[in-house]
Amino acid sequence: MLNELGKRAKAASRMMARLSQNDKNKALLAVADALLANKEEILAANETDMQHAVENNMTEALQDRLRLTEARLEGIAEGVRQVVGLDDPIGEVLSMKERPNGLMIGQKRVPMGVIGIIYESRPNVTVDAFALTFKTSNAVILRGGSDCIHSNMALVAVIRKALRDAGAPEDAVLLIEDTKREVATAFMKLNNYVDLLIPRGGAGLIRSVVENATIPVIETGTGNCHIFVDKDADLEKAIPIIENAKLQRLGVCNACESLVIHKDIADKALPLIAELLKKNDCEIRGDENACAISDYVVPASEEDYGTEYLAKIISAKIVDSLDAAIEHINKYSTGHSESIITESYEDAQRFLNEVDSACVYVNASTRFTDGFEFGFGAEIGISTQKLHARGPMGLLALTSTKYIIYGNGQIRE
Amino acid sequence: MLNELGKRAKAASRMMARLSQNDKNKALLAVADALLANKEEILAANETDMQHAVENNMTEALQDRLRLTEARLEGIAEGVRQVVGLDDPIGEVLSMKERPNGLMIGQKRVPMGVIGIIYESRPNVTVDAFALTFKTSNAVILRGGSDCIHSNMALVAVIRKALRDAGAPEDAVLLIEDTKREVATAFMKLNNYVDLLIPRGGAGLIRSVVENATIPVIETGTGNCHIFVDKDADLEKAIPIIENAKLQRLGVCNACESLVIHKDIADKALPLIAELLKKNDCEIRGDENACAISDYVVPASEEDYGTEYLAKIISAKIVDSLDAAIEHINKYSTGHSESIITESYEDAQRFLNEVDSACVYVNASTRFTDGFEFGFGAEIGISTQKLHARGPMGLLALTSTKYIIYGNGQIRE
Repeated sequence: MLNELGKRAKAASRMMARLSQNDKNKALLAVADALLANKEEILAANETDMQHAVENNMTEALQDRLRLTEARLEGIAEGVRQVVGLDDPIGEVLSMKERPNGLMIGQKRVPMGVIGIIYESRPNVTVDAFALTFKTSNAVILRGGSDCIHSNMALVAVIRKALRDAGAPEDAVLLIEDTKREVATAFMKLNNYVDLLIPRGGAGLIRSVVENATIPVIETGTGNCHIFVDKDADLEKAIPIIENAKLQRLGVCNACESLVIHKDIADKALPLIAELLKKNDCEIRGDENACAISDYVVPASEEDYGTEYLAKIISAKIVDSLDAAIEHINKYSTGHSESIITESYEDAQRFLNEVDSACVYVNASTRFTDGFEFGFGAEIGISTQKLHARGPMGLLALTSTKYIIYGNGQIRE
Repeated sequence: MLNELGKRAKAASRMMARLSQNDKNKALLAVADALLANKEEILAANETDMQHAVENNMTEALQDRLRLTEARLEGIAEGVRQVVGLDDPIGEVLSMKERPNGLMIGQKRVPMGVIGIIYESRPNVTVDAFALTFKTSNAVILRGGSDCIHSNMALVAVIRKALRDAGAPEDAVLLIEDTKREVATAFMKLNNYVDLLIPRGGAGLIRSVVENATIPVIETGTGNCHIFVDKDADLEKAIPIIENAKLQRLGVCNACESLVIHKDIADKALPLIAELLKKNDCEIRGDENACAISDYVVPASEEDYGTEYLAKIISAKIVDSLDAAIEHINKYSTGHSESIITESYEDAQRFLNEVDSACVYVNASTRFTDGFEFGFGAEIGISTQKLHARGPMGLLALTSTKYIIYGNGQIRE
């Protein structure tokens, strides 16, 4: 079954290579229209998923992720229209140079081919992942969560019909309808047909993909993000940044989970931070020195420093020096986003150079790590690995390159 | 043992981030000098490997790969000096733009971190891989073949001492001295310490790495390269290009292994090709139509079309159209290098667009797929995957990027 899907996706990806930018944009607009024209059947399918969710005692937060409404569907269709407006990276020749023997060699931006996306129960990801992979002339095979299967089947059926009507290959989007775990594991090994696998979801899903996949993977997501309050920090910047990074949204990967504070400023900074967090019912788990400074701090275990809480808890570590701060961060970080609050030029530069994360900030909230905030106009995820794409991934992350070489009979000496 | 090596490599990679370009180049020149100053002990160690090779009845071709001589050692040292002269990609900020909220966001080119290289019995790879990874501020863990272990231990000891004397971290190069297979397999799963794994060697090695590694891998190497003789081919270009691509060097990945010939030119082209190959004792295995045109062609099996011979054998397929040629190539190719011989503008453009390989040529030999021929000044391998790097890989393939963000107190709305 998977091999069959793989073959169809590969064939569709060959056809995608022949579509012009106009062809693709027309098809995307047709999909946006079709999502709204077929809203009754999509919402009905989602209602089936929602009923099962209630029967299975799904938490209210997860139910909220799963739920589609007319307004949300309009937002999803609007998202597809926005993708139409983005610059199309496919076809650009990055540089073309003549070699001494007269060969003209250029590097051309091309589709990845077939992209696999494994994700959890968010129906918006279904449409979003389709729009971004289609815009970059890829075929996509989707494997969503079982909780969401009826919604996904309805959405994909509507998209496929709209593509067919628009003269585009409907197999550019395929859904794995069998949501058994072993099917997902087999999907991760479909090297003959799938060029790239992107997991989107919690830490468990991502770990499972990294461990099982033989297809190239882009690891996304988990963020144990740090803010370092340097000895020369301006606390009028530090406090609002900590408030924003920790508390604005708790369940996101770019939220701050760990504080590191220079000992020379801890006596002044920590009471202010404790006051802020106490006011917001956010627990602080700190080392001995932090506990000694503020009664509000409770003792941290070693494990706390490596935890992505996604909740009203934060860890705090007092350090002797910038070096110790960098070492602590590089040890416990997931390589997502870290920020230094400092007025010291040298400390800022050293932090940017030596902290080994996808996004390193001076005097700003880690919450800005996001494709839209970075100006990409889209986001397929945030890569925490170093290969191919690192940090927020826009359309470029879904492309590859090939060398094109124009000759006139050259042979190698 | 591997965890210990991993820790040391990671620590060295942090120290590498602080070396300036001058520091790195001085250390590389010291290594080049040290390789020559210690030639007796390196050649003596190689002699031990050579004796074992003879005892184990290693083929002459493999013995030749393994052998070091004074002249070869001089060539290896000269290779290190050439790396000093290459542009250093580390530290470049690819673009820095101001966002509406005043954040300055740029993408900086940074080292990958720790790179693992798994390779076979070529002692030159040991030095070469070190020089390229060191130039890009990475630490490298090498795992060479058991046949080469004494040579590798001697080379790595000399390099490490030279680094230490030059004030650079000696753990920037580490050798796995235990050449047991299960150690290599465990190495492929050292995700906590290794950022990227590059296999260099035959198809069996590469398959084993792709199947077993949980670390991100760049697949290199195997090349079932095609030349398509289009109906509008200029045979005065085609014949020398086929001669060069098939016969100049047999054992290389960019050699041509498969011919595809348009039916409208086959009657004219195939006898000339057969004459050329017969003169050079190169067998042709073709389909029925090819056999009907030339007595020299023997029948091909299905398997032949997918085989990288690395020997005096080539396959030949007659096709009805450009579409059929593209389909055949995309089906059997390993995605390395393919060339069309044609005077047709449209066919040339379609071939470049629709053939899904790392390097696609018009009217030139596939033998040009090489980092030096492409003007990179170096090559760590040729990637046949689409992620991160595709085609010949120079220094850039050994780097990653990070976003650096300068703020002045920004928080997200």
